[in-house]
Formats: sequence, C-alpha cells, structure tokens
Amino acid sequence: MKKGEIDRRGFLRASAIGGVSASVSSAEPLQSAAAPARDVTRHLAAWAVSSRKEDVPAAIRREALRTVLNWTGCAVGGSRHETVEIALRALRPFSGPEQASVLGRKDRLDVLNASLLNGISSHIFDFDDTDLRTIVHPAGPVAPALLALAEYRPISGADFLHALIVGVEVECRIANAVYPQHYDIGWHITGTVGPFGAAAAAGKVLGLSEQQMVWALGLAATQPVGLREMFGTMTKSFHPGRASQNGLMAAFLAGQNFTSSDQPIEAARGWANVLSTARNYREITEKLGDRYQIAFNSYKPFPCGVVIHPALDGVLQLRAENHLTAGEIDRIELRVHPLVLELTGKKAPKTGLESKFSVYHAVAAAMVYGRVGEPAFSDQAVRDAAVMALRDRVGTTVDQAIGEDQVRIAIVLKDGRRLDKFIEHAIGSARNPMTDGQLEAKFKSLAEGVLPGDRTSRLIDFCWNMEHAVDAAQLARLAVA
Amino acid sequence: MKKGEIDRRGFLRASAIGGVSASVSSAEPLQSAAAPARDVTRHLAAWAVSSRKEDVPAAIRREALRTVLNWTGCAVGGSRHETVEIALRALRPFSGPEQASVLGRKDRLDVLNASLLNGISSHIFDFDDTDLRTIVHPAGPVAPALLALAEYRPISGADFLHALIVGVEVECRIANAVYPQHYDIGWHITGTVGPFGAAAAAGKVLGLSEQQMVWALGLAATQPVGLREMFGTMTKSFHPGRASQNGLMAAFLAGQNFTSSDQPIEAARGWANVLSTARNYREITEKLGDRYQIAFNSYKPFPCGVVIHPALDGVLQLRAENHLTAGEIDRIELRVHPLVLELTGKKAPKTGLESKFSVYHAVAAAMVYGRVGEPAFSDQAVRDAAVMALRDRVGTTVDQAIGEDQVRIAIVLKDGRRLDKFIEHAIGSARNPMTDGQLEAKFKSLAEGVLPGDRTSRLIDFCWNMEHAVDAAQLARLAVA
Repeated sequence: MKKGEIDRRGFLRASAIGGVSASVSSAEPLQSAAAPARDVTRHLAAWAVSSRKEDVPAAIRREALRTVLNWTGCAVGGSRHETVEIALRALRPFSGPEQASVLGRKDRLDVLNASLLNGISSHIFDFDDTDLRTIVHPAGPVAPALLALAEYRPISGADFLHALIVGVEVECRIANAVYPQHYDIGWHITGTVGPFGAAAAAGKVLGLSEQQMVWALGLAATQPVGLREMFGTMTKSFHPGRASQNGLMAAFLAGQNFTSSDQPIEAARGWANVLSTARNYREITEKLGDRYQIAFNSYKPFPCGVVIHPALDGVLQLRAENHLTAGEIDRIELRVHPLVLELTGKKAPKTGLESKFSVYHAVAAAMVYGRVGEPAFSDQAVRDAAVMALRDRVGTTVDQAIGEDQVRIAIVLKDGRRLDKFIEHAIGSARNPMTDGQLEAKFKSLAEGVLPGDRTSRLIDFCWNMEHAVDAAQLARLAVA
Repeated sequence: MKKGEIDRRGFLRASAIGGVSASVSSAEPLQSAAAPARDVTRHLAAWAVSSRKEDVPAAIRREALRTVLNWTGCAVGGSRHETVEIALRALRPFSGPEQASVLGRKDRLDVLNASLLNGISSHIFDFDDTDLRTIVHPAGPVAPALLALAEYRPISGADFLHALIVGVEVECRIANAVYPQHYDIGWHITGTVGPFGAAAAAGKVLGLSEQQMVWALGLAATQPVGLREMFGTMTKSFHPGRASQNGLMAAFLAGQNFTSSDQPIEAARGWANVLSTARNYREITEKLGDRYQIAFNSYKPFPCGVVIHPALDGVLQLRAENHLTAGEIDRIELRVHPLVLELTGKKAPKTGLESKFSVYHAVAAAMVYGRVGEPAFSDQAVRDAAVMALRDRVGTTVDQAIGEDQVRIAIVLKDGRRLDKFIEHAIGSARNPMTDGQLEAKFKSLAEGVLPGDRTSRLIDFCWNMEHAVDAAQLARLAVA
C-alpha cells in the first residue's frame, strides 16, 4: 500500500459528521465474538430488513434529499449524450413493457432496462456524487433501481428516501471494507459494490425477508461490474447502470426464493476474498444504524474526476482575481496529490470522455473558457487549438504533502509575473461542501435545454419536499422530456 | 500452486486431437514480437471476425454437432426445474417481445431474457459439456445467446455452428490463459469467460467489424459473472445464463459503436490482470485457426461435478458385475484425485443442488439406485434413508498418484468379501469419450416427459444434420413444449 492510499482512507474524515473516525488500522478479517466473519452478510441483511425510517436522524434524511437532487440533475443532463442514444438504439428492440421512464427523454422501458439507462445517463458526465473515502458514486447504482421500481410499484417519498439511505449504507460499507486494495487491483468500485446497494434498496421496497435479503446480496456479489481499464470510454458509464440493473434483478429473483450463498461476502470464496487482497468486516457490521454513510456524500462542482477539482477551483479563482486570458499565460505549474497523475494523467486525450481523465486538458480548458461545465469536456473542446496549446504548457509535480482536496498552483505569465495560490479545501470537498444553492444552480445548468418550461423549478421543489410526497414516482414524471 | 493443479493443466492432453501439447511451462505475460501483450484482444478479435466456415476442418464441425446435441438435451431436461420456474416468475413481467423460445417450455421471451433462461436450464443439472483442461462448460454461455439470436435474425445451420465454434474458441482460449490460478482464486470460470464467448459468437453473427469486436470483448470483460461460493445453490446455474446474456448484450452495444477499451484483456488493469494472479497470452493468440478448442470438449455421463465421474463409473460397474444391492455393503473406500474433495467434499448435503457436490451422496445413490440420472440428485434422494445410511459409510483418501479421470475403489461387503476396481479412464473423459449413441441415449433420457411425441427423434436428427439446415432456429422450434 502506497502512502497516498493510506492517506486516502482517512482523508477528510477527521471532523466527519457525527464525529466518526474512519481511519482504519487493520485490514485483516475480523473474527470477534460480536460479528464473526461468517455472519457478515446476515448481519447486514438483518439490519437492512429491520431498519425503520422513523429511526433515521433528520440530518441524514436531509443529505438524502441533496443526493436525490444531485443525481436527478446528472441523469437529466446526461440523457442526450451519444452514449445514451447508442445504448437505447441497441437495447430498445428487446425492452419489455413501458413501465419506467428514461429521465430527460420521452422513452419508456421496462423497469430493468430503465435502471440501466438512467444509471448510464447519471454517470456519463462524471458529474455525480462521490463518497470521498472510497470514490464510490453512491447514488449511481441505487437511485436508478429505486426510481424505476417506484414507477412500477408505488411507494411514498419517505419510503423512497429510506430505501436510498439503506442502499447507500450497504454499498458504501462494503466498499469501506475493501478499500483501497480492491480499487488498486483495478476494479471500478462503483460497479462492484453497486449491485449490493441496488439489491438492498430494491429489496427493502419489495419487503424481502432476512433470508431473501441475504440471497439478494448473494446474487449481487456474483455479478460485479467494472474494470478501471474502461475509464475514458462509454463503458465507464455502463458500470453504474449495469450495477443498478444487476442489483434490481437480484432483488426480484431473491424475492421469489432464488437461492444463493448464505455467506456471499465473507465466505472463503466469497466476494471480499475473491475481489480484494484485504478486507475489514468491522467496516460492514459495526454501528449499523448509529452512523450513516450517506452523511459523507459529496457533490461535484465540475464534471470530471474528483481529484482534478482542487486545480480547477484554483485556476478559476486565479483567472477571475487577475482578469487573466489564456493568451497571457506562459505556463501553469501544479503541485498535486499523487492520485492526480495516477487517475488523470492523460497528456493528450482524443475524445471528450478521455479528457475527463486529463488534468492537463481540464486546467487548460478552465483557463480558456473561464468555466468548467460539460462543454469543457466535449469532443470539440478537446480539438480546440487554444486549449491544446495551453494544455502542453501545464506541468505537474507530485507532492506527498499535498492533500487530496488540495493543490498548489503557480501561473507564470508571458510578462514574467508569477501568480501563486494554495487551495486548502477544494470546492465540493467535505470541508468545503456544495451549498444547497450551489446544488440548485448545478441542477439548473444540467436541466437547461433538456426539460421544458418551469419543470426545472418544480423538480427542485419536489426533491426538497420529497419526504412528504405521496408518490415517489412523481420525480420521474417531472424529469422526462 | 498445489501439485494437483499443475497436473490439471496438462491433464488428459498428452494425446489430444491434433497432437497439440497443452502443457504450459510459464504463466507469465508474453511480450514476444509475434504477439505483444498489448495486441492480445485485437489479435483475437481479428481472428474471430475473419474466420471462415470453409476453413474449419470436418472433425471440428462434427464436434460442434455433438456439442449442440448435448447442450440442447441439457436445456430441455432442465427446463422444468424449480430454478427455472422461479427465474421465469421473477423476470417475465419485465421481458420484452416474444422473440425467442425457452427450450422445453411454452414460454417465449425477448432475445436477452431467453438467453439467460436457456443458460440456466442447460446448467441446472450440472450435466453439460466440459472442457476438461479448465472445467469450463463451453456451450453454456455461447449456445443460448446464439440460439436466441437465430430466432430473431435468421441464420443457416452452418453459420450457427461456425459462430458456436468461434465463441467456444474465444472463451476457452481466455480460460487457458489464466487457468488454474483464476479458478483457484474463487471464480466460476464458465461465468467469467462465458461473456467473451457469447460476445464473439453473437458478434460473428451480427457481422461486427474488428474494432466493434474488440469493444464487444471489452464489454464482456467488464461483466464477469460467478463466484464458486455459489456452488450448490440456484445461483450456480445463473452464471452461464447471465454470462450468455452479458455477452449478447455486449455484441448488441458494440454493434452500435458503444466504445470500450482497446486492450480489455491484456491492459495493466484489464481482465487478465484484475481477475487472475497469472496469465499466459500465448494461449490466446498462438495457432488461432490451426487448433480448435472445441476439439477438446467432453460430455458428462452423470449430472454432477465431473471429478466424481470416475467413482460413479466404478461403483456402477462393480454393482452390475457382482449383482450387488446396497444392503450387502459394509463400506466403500475410494482413493481419489485431490480435486474430488476440494470440489465435492460435502458430507451431508441438504438439497438436491448441494448433493451434486458430494462424492459421498453420489456414490451412495449410485449403489442404491443402480443408475445415476438427475433423480439421483433430487431433494427426495438426499432424504432417502437408504442413501443417507450408505453415504456415511463411504470413505475417501486423497492420492496424488490418482489421475483426475481415475479412481481406485474397494467395496467391503458385510460378509467380509472385498471387491476392488481401478478405473483408468472414466466414461466421458477424453480417453473414453461418450459415443454418438451414448449422447443420443442421454438426450432421450433428458427429453423424456418434456417434449411431445416424436419430437425427440426429430430433434436428434436435426442436430446431426444441422450443417445443412437453412434455418438454425428450427432447433428452437423443435425443442419447445
């Protein structure tokens, strides 16, 4: 384990909500009397089945609203991307009854296909929510399954939110148990833990028994999705979509007593042993119902890999403060956390999707355009001569002293001046979270041009008041074109 | 790597068809000029796309017919199992147009769901074909995808067989590259390489370009299915079914230019590195079109784990030769290959599905019933007092000198007599393969009571003559109830 990875585990967690320390000293299997390794899945399933919405603290329920708002905006905003068009063209001939909506569009598909498509839409911009400890995008696999199910089998807004909280809890705890080793191997963790989250959320709504929930988690365990090798291609967004669909199918099957293992996570040949080189089951079983993982959710201000965000924040600030234009810049020097180059070190991306994994492109585009929305990562932006010229004059130095939400920037101008900035906590990080107002502005920018008339403001209102909604599926009806 | 596993790699291959030695001295990545590691997937895709049926030797085409016959019988025979009933009940509400048949039944589903269901049916008895080197069940993921596709987009019998040969080639070569390490980690290899086979076969029928075939293999790589932990539960049979569906979906998406990695198998974070601790890419790229993996296919005479077959063969022979009844037996002593206990060491199975992984149950049932068909592994057989009583008097000793297709049996009778038998090559093994007549008898026993009237003999005729069939989908029409 490299130093950066150790840091990442405790990253930003020192003052986390509820005062919970998330630093982990051991990654060995736990065999304590309280939660023997053989009961990990059953323990988690029993909690998911017995969790009552009345017992969830108000602050947690509030974070779930922010999660829903952010996810819906991303799904609506991404719904017209070529990736979604292609997936629809390929799969529509095989879709079942028109049971559920593809957000941002007129298409209706069966529940399972709708969960796949909405999962793709919500991730294609790389703009979704992020659990900063594990880089899981929590809503991506859970929300599409739940929303499609809500259109098929009506539930209240409060039950929807509760099931979302349960699903996020299950997926993020399993992620915590195997992070960072599981991710370092090459698994796209959102796609591998996502089926558990979707299965738990859907299973909650379907009223699965404890045994059925265990089997649902087993069917989820046996269907992990996602190699990191796919980053920069359309398949990356397929991961949360397919994870959602896999988990939803797992819940449907288990609900009819389709059997699987009773120890799918912790068995000798279970998920945690097969897909990771280390595991800590305490992360799954301890304090269930006392601390909630959704409390640690964050929301991206920029549609690209989260590790680039400090640099974008800093460059945009320097540009505004000094009224800079790209033509004045000689070079930009960044001192960055090691993960920045590991994850986003592409020097010369060829497509918009690839450019989301290039700190060089992102910083250049930020300086050229003065804002970093989805257009900054379009195929067009990648071929923009001004961006390409500046991209080659962005330099990076890895610095172990730089935190994951930090960056040290020096911009050297052609006239010889040098402008410095240190970003201590980037916008969107746990110490500097997006405000409700910023989330609304993000939502509006994503929905603009996709949804008609006053729908955007009605959707925002619906999200904030979802806890009192009689029918959660109203969210889907408001979010279609 | 244990000795048994080393043996397994070369097992039964010394005189394999075509004289090819399959022993592998190195499991390291290959970086030779002939096939640099970075081109492994493209090499394989280019072969799959360019392969012409005219170039496939007659013996290979003949083996494909045997594979189809065996697979069809298994799918028909398994089609009434509770596992299939449950899956249909759970998923039918979401299925699309009635495009393809569920064999052995009246149900019709969309192409993707039909491939899932037929994959489940064909594996639920654990009676399917087996590549003895890797224990992959080659047809399980490939045939369901192809047959469902053939009902949707008509192809000739010859094209069907050719695509089957291509799909089996792709999946078995990838399996060879990572076996046994990949399997030892805990992956159910049929489910993890199956998506590649189904994607290649379906992609061949759909006429994918080389680049699209690479992407299809990428979409397959990112959707592996199956933990060995699921053995003994319904989810085991889900693995080839879902693998088939994943591969078919991969081909549909790639056919519309849904992009994925260009090096999904061999990249640093590609499939072979993420899912295995060792890999030999020569197994994938060498002699493509010169040797064919389907030549090494074998067919099970008994519906259970292949490693038990020598013991069953021997017990049935001893029983017949000596006119034994279970009541005369004091105890049965087996000297077995190490894998027998690793894979089938369950002492007291509780369900029919579990009993397929119990050498103790299997041997006792063989002695009590005198034949080993699917009823020997029913829930009822597991609770049969006579079987349970004898099961506890079956002893096993691991013997490194015993080959995987061998067993040494001693039956001690209550009157003190001792009967010995050494099985050198079990029925169904490469050295003692099922004859065409035995395959037909197996087919008839599976189809009995499922298919009406003369359908069984018509189906057998169709399979043997499939190469001349105008419409491959006729197979499906003959195989429905």
